[in-house]
Parts: sequence; C-alpha cells; structure tokens
Amino acid sequence: MKIKFLLIGKTDSDILSKGVNDYIKRLKHYIPFEMSIIPDLKNTKNLSEGQQKQKEGELILNFIKSGDFVVLLDEKGKEYTSIDFSGFIEKQMISGLKNLIFIIGGPYGFSEEVYKKCNSKISLSRMTFSHQMVRLIFTEQLYRAMTIIKGEPYHHR
Amino acid sequence: MKIKFLLIGKTDSDILSKGVNDYIKRLKHYIPFEMSIIPDLKNTKNLSEGQQKQKEGELILNFIKSGDFVVLLDEKGKEYTSIDFSGFIEKQMISGLKNLIFIIGGPYGFSEEVYKKCNSKISLSRMTFSHQMVRLIFTEQLYRAMTIIKGEPYHHR
Repeated sequence: MKIKFLLIGKTDSDILSKGVNDYIKRLKHYIPFEMSIIPDLKNTKNLSEGQQKQKEGELILNFIKSGDFVVLLDEKGKEYTSIDFSGFIEKQMISGLKNLIFIIGGPYGFSEEVYKKCNSKISLSRMTFSHQMVRLIFTEQLYRAMTIIKGEPYHHR
Repeated sequence: MKIKFLLIGKTDSDILSKGVNDYIKRLKHYIPFEMSIIPDLKNTKNLSEGQQKQKEGELILNFIKSGDFVVLLDEKGKEYTSIDFSGFIEKQMISGLKNLIFIIGGPYGFSEEVYKKCNSKISLSRMTFSHQMVRLIFTEQLYRAMTIIKGEPYHHR
C-alpha cells in the first residue's frame, strides 16, 4: 500500500518544512509515501467562497483514481487517538488497498463533490492549525502510527 | 498578566526548536511570556512510575506561587477550539490575574498533588505528540489566541 498526502496550499517552504521533510524521510523507511501539493489558486479575489471550493474540488477529484481510499482531514471528522489511528492504517494495509489518500483542503474547506467522493473524515484536533503545522503534525502521526504497527519504542504512552 | 509555560522534558534543541522560538518571539509582542524547562530527571531507572511522577510533581509545585492560575495540558483535559481557547485566555486577562501557568508533565503524567493544585485541564488533541511537537503546537495556539483577541487576520477560519 502507498500513502498519498494531498494538500491545497502554499508551496513555499518555511521554518517548519525541515521538520516535515524529516518525518517524511523517516516514514519512507516503513511505507511508500508521496506528498503532493496543489498550489493556492491565483486570482481568487473575483471568486466567491463556493466558487473557490468548487475549483479546488475539481483539482482534488482529478487526483483520485478508482479504488483509492480517500480520507479528508476535516474539522467535522472523527478524532482518533494515536493508537486508534495506527489501527486504522493497519486495517487498510491488511485489506490489500493500493492507495490510501489523505487530503487537506483549501481555506474554505471541501466542495460537496469531494465530500461525496471521500470514504472517511478525520480531525487532528478541535483547534485550528496553519497549513504548515497540519503537515508537520500529520506526518509525525503517520510516522508514529508506523512505529506503533511495528511495535517500536517511539510511541511509549 | 503574564503567561508562563512550564515543561518537564528534554532541553536539547532539535529541528523544531526554531519554530517554537519563532512563535514565542511573535507572542511576546502581545503579552509577557516565559517558558521554563525542568530537565528530565536523571537516574530514573531505579524509580517506579509513581516515584518519578512524585519527584517531578515536587519540582512543579515549587514553581507555583499563591494566586497563580494553573492549567495542565492533559489527555483527560477539555478540548477547545482555537476561538474558545482565545476566549479562555481573554477571560483570565480581564480578571486581573497575575500569572497564567500552562504545564506539560513528564512521560507518565502528573502526580495527584499536581492535579489537586491545578485550576483547569486542557487537551490539544486526542492524539499523542512528542514533547517538542506539543511545545510547537501550543506556542502556535497561544500566538493564534492573541491575534484572535486583537481581531487580527492570522486566524481566518
């Protein structure tokens, strides 16, 4: 199984990108992983929130192939403990799934079409984090999940 | 009011410490802020979990002064949205409080004495994060809370 992480948002690196890259490097020792970034839409001033979500949604749907399991990171999603999250990943691995895709949306969230297409929604926290923070938190949780699945000592609580 | 952030844990810097320092620098434009780190206990091999919590608890209690408002970051704590969290901070600021203290415990959590002393418990997420990640997430949320209180555009969801 491959884990794909798709984001809408800024591509510029910042102070946290080293941390993100570090967790991705570690993660790849355990499982094929790919992060893809759809850059922020240009000239959004003339678009309503709904139109922007719609356009971003089309770009997201282009990315999804038939048979992919799609999980949205969404504030209305289910909250997992790290242990439960690792259980969720392991279940997908065992099922023979080819691609497990996690998606972070744009500033206004996801279009209805994307919600219809998704298989599951998860929430990292009730708090709101910046794009770059979500990337960092999420890649750390994926890495943590893999160490839990392998019974390694990184996660010791 | 001053916000104090007390941690038990490693003092060594890592790849994320730049991010923590960056948020602290920004935060200090809004409110007096101080981060204090109680280093991990040495020679804990001969201590039971309970003994280690006890010893760490004594160090924590030494730090707290009469009249301080003490909030533990605890997995059994209440989860806030970023907006609600900023409301919580603002309420303390208005109350004329001198010190608002947030505390992250050691690997086994807090002693009973520390739980008795605290005024409130909050949880950032149901997921478990590393020490360094918690520092980063929490300082970002404090900074975000201040921008929400001031009506500034950093938090736009």
